[in-house]
Amino acid sequence: MDKTTLIVFSDDLDKVLAAFNIATGSASMGMEVTMFFTFWGLNVIRKDKPSKRSSNWMKRLLGMMNLGGADRLKLSKFHMMGIGTGMMRALMKKSNMPSVKEMISLSKELGVKMVACTTTMEIMGIHKEDLIPEVDMIAGVATYLENAKESKVNLFI
Amino acid sequence: MDKTTLIVFSDDLDKVLAAFNIATGSASMGMEVTMFFTFWGLNVIRKDKPSKRSSNWMKRLLGMMNLGGADRLKLSKFHMMGIGTGMMRALMKKSNMPSVKEMISLSKELGVKMVACTTTMEIMGIHKEDLIPEVDMIAGVATYLENAKESKVNLFI
Amino acid sequence: MDKTTLIVFSDDLDKVLAAFNIATGSASMGMEVTMFFTFWGLNVIRKDKPSKRSSNWMKRLLGMMNLGGADRLKLSKFHMMGIGTGMMRALMKKSNMPSVKEMISLSKELGVKMVACTTTMEIMGIHKEDLIPEVDMIAGVATYLENAKESKVNLFI
Repeated sequence: MDKTTLIVFSDDLDKVLAAFNIATGSASMGMEVTMFFTFWGLNVIRKDKPSKRSSNWMKRLLGMMNLGGADRLKLSKFHMMGIGTGMMRALMKKSNMPSVKEMISLSKELGVKMVACTTTMEIMGIHKEDLIPEVDMIAGVATYLENAKESKVNLFI
Repeated sequence: MDKTTLIVFSDDLDKVLAAFNIATGSASMGMEVTMFFTFWGLNVIRKDKPSKRSSNWMKRLLGMMNLGGADRLKLSKFHMMGIGTGMMRALMKKSNMPSVKEMISLSKELGVKMVACTTTMEIMGIHKEDLIPEVDMIAGVATYLENAKESKVNLFI
Repeated sequence: MDKTTLIVFSDDLDKVLAAFNIATGSASMGMEVTMFFTFWGLNVIRKDKPSKRSSNWMKRLLGMMNLGGADRLKLSKFHMMGIGTGMMRALMKKSNMPSVKEMISLSKELGVKMVACTTTMEIMGIHKEDLIPEVDMIAGVATYLENAKESKVNLFI
């Protein structure tokens, strides 16, 4: 079976939408898809509530600045205090494009595998309980490479 | 024949130049090249004149903010009100590097195929008449994946 | 032998760390790795001291704005006058993550090949003497493509 492996590094709304578009498109064509969420991309698969568990003040501060949750993602351009991002969401709705949350559900239905990056979680003080239940596994670069090596489509987004 | 397939997601001048460098380089080496312009990348293959056709005020507003045209692209860093971008263009000229417009012509001569993303066009209210004549076709993620699956070089830029 | 080829286009600290993570991970798994540093990515493999050689005032100005050196890299988000970037470095140290300089040494030990992009060097007025000694070769897009075509993992970062 042909494989697609995507590294989702960014949490920009536009890039995340592109990633899910390629993921669901690949799955619809019968490909086996793995999305590897790393660095800011981890915010896409975090629960809306900020994690408060860390005993390290820097991780707590980073947690306050860097809020997770699929509904919080912003455009990489024209965010403009929320106006641009809100407009894009409205235009997407008008064009019957699914939201990121709907994209996550659709991906799960289509069998897309979602992996959270161990290293990022450790640096940023994010715990397993902070991630949405749709996440299939927590793994490192070796797992990514095993998948990527056998993939016909492999992108860094 | 070996294939190269590039997703041009960004309209940052520097990234677009990198994309065309890889595209024309691949074509010069006898590879079959497809550039898939999506999201902000669509601005690279839009005519200079803003489109005024949309009846939806949000699409009109987005159209005013998000002007297309290969000569309007800015650097991702050091744009500085145009000074950095202007300087980069001047340095490129000094080094005999072609401009984006010249890169587009060169790509066409070398047989590079340029594809505009259907989904982006719909969301942003961009019509076929808004695109430069060099565009070969308008297509969605399935067309991209068919190409990408068979490509030896496949990048998200 | 399986190959990994990475284009390091960005000099954002977070993206550069991701690139070295994939590079050293690949090398540890016995893959042959080439990192191709282009555009802003060239800053990663530049010496800390700014180059003062150029006779062209624009290149001199660009050299002043665009300082190289692995210790100068900033986060793509939350840089905040250095606070965010400093915090990230501290968190990485706490998690026993190596710095970029350590990553470069580790990569060399593991046999990762580092290539500097000719075209970028010419445009930006960077000379061979401005690069760190770990750089293996200076080459253009054709060399990149020869490697990329035969690679199982090939990313634009």
